[in-house]
Amino acid sequence: MRFKLTIAYDGTNYAGWQVQKTGLGVQQRVEEALQKIFADARQVHSSSRTDTGVHALGMVAHVEIPDSEFKMPVAKLPLALNAHLPEDIRVLAAARCRSDFHARFDAAGKQYRYFVWNHCAMNPLLRHQAWLVHQPLNLGAMRAAARLLLGKHDFTSFAGTRNCKLYKMESAVRTVTRCDIRRAGPLLTFTIEGDGFLYKMCRGFVGTLVQVGQGKFSPNDIKQMLARKDRRAGGMTAPAHGLVLWKVLYGRRSTSR
Amino acid sequence: MRFKLTIAYDGTNYAGWQVQKTGLGVQQRVEEALQKIFADARQVHSSSRTDTGVHALGMVAHVEIPDSEFKMPVAKLPLALNAHLPEDIRVLAAARCRSDFHARFDAAGKQYRYFVWNHCAMNPLLRHQAWLVHQPLNLGAMRAAARLLLGKHDFTSFAGTRNCKLYKMESAVRTVTRCDIRRAGPLLTFTIEGDGFLYKMCRGFVGTLVQVGQGKFSPNDIKQMLARKDRRAGGMTAPAHGLVLWKVLYGRRSTSR
Repeated sequence: MRFKLTIAYDGTNYAGWQVQKTGLGVQQRVEEALQKIFADARQVHSSSRTDTGVHALGMVAHVEIPDSEFKMPVAKLPLALNAHLPEDIRVLAAARCRSDFHARFDAAGKQYRYFVWNHCAMNPLLRHQAWLVHQPLNLGAMRAAARLLLGKHDFTSFAGTRNCKLYKMESAVRTVTRCDIRRAGPLLTFTIEGDGFLYKMCRGFVGTLVQVGQGKFSPNDIKQMLARKDRRAGGMTAPAHGLVLWKVLYGRRSTSR
Repeated sequence: MRFKLTIAYDGTNYAGWQVQKTGLGVQQRVEEALQKIFADARQVHSSSRTDTGVHALGMVAHVEIPDSEFKMPVAKLPLALNAHLPEDIRVLAAARCRSDFHARFDAAGKQYRYFVWNHCAMNPLLRHQAWLVHQPLNLGAMRAAARLLLGKHDFTSFAGTRNCKLYKMESAVRTVTRCDIRRAGPLLTFTIEGDGFLYKMCRGFVGTLVQVGQGKFSPNDIKQMLARKDRRAGGMTAPAHGLVLWKVLYGRRSTSR
């Protein structure tokens, strides 16, 4: 039987989702918890690999658990797994899914949120989950720039260079369907949604948009950045700890059994 | 010269605001930071004393700094103090105020927010700042009950017993001007505002309202609880870590010089 898990984690103490040589991955903790309950549970396959320090509220993964081992009502699975997970990782939901459902290949889109605390001093309650930007920001310019990132583009200028080196053959064309910024007092929330994201692309968007807000780039520079298809043309990469993988989107067919 | 400080803190690692025998108070850290810059800075007087584990975004305090010692522009004071504070405490703002301004006695009101994560599993990003309630809640009943707490009442039935024992002579009558509940997915935000609050009164409100949502009390029971003026008549006290002192309200006159 195959199960779809929705997983949330505070990425502060992890070297990202994936099992890494450089540190503990969230994946490893989830697999350990599964194996404590189901001796033959196999590898967990996730929709995405988040970087060191990046958080998730709606990471999705699938896992195979042999029929013979699965004795509990599926609604109890989150509780059972959470009993074996540290408090910075939680399984929020579990459901049976089609036997060929794949968390990564079936994903139709993803939504990330990025939090900026725009004030002279950090909000200590958000210190692990928001980027402190103390300069005043021109929100109108940032929103105008954000609109230019919408649509289908080659996003090489905003992505980490890993894409260029290791995956040179892979297309850098993605479709961004939402890129907006809300302000509530000093808190800015960036909501970025698309059919897929290059390595560090969200953080490249946010870093560049904040620089637009600081007057280092004009909204029109975004058009030239896109056209250049060169990471050196884009703006800075925002720090990891402000980013949350908010949800992964699937078509109706792919998750139902 | 007297200064008004706006202070935010993550209360997780503190025994509340006040210097305590049982553990470190936030106040002590703020006074230590002041004394590193101004040898003769005196005691910091706060608007409120938060309990162990309770957070603040807008705690207000006043402090006296001798004219002869204060050489910096006042806008630099938060930066200077934050350099000597741990990252879970931040001075968000500082301003000169009238020499007879008193953070506690001049406060016209306070706003608290309380966060409940209403889901089968905790959101790990909110684990130190929200109360996990996994049962389904009847939000309509909770809102009807919340409206009955509005207005001028004797709130003995919702306050910690400290008020009854140590401060028996003090009136338990307060005026609550706002008590509402917003839902955004599994996150409930209680906003409670009033001219003053008894010991543990906000947490008594939230604990009781959650019990209304669970069907343990009806909205109408709130009326009888108020009438009884007995802590045993009210509902449970919600845990400290979901509560944030959001802001302290002052009349215009009291803070301007």
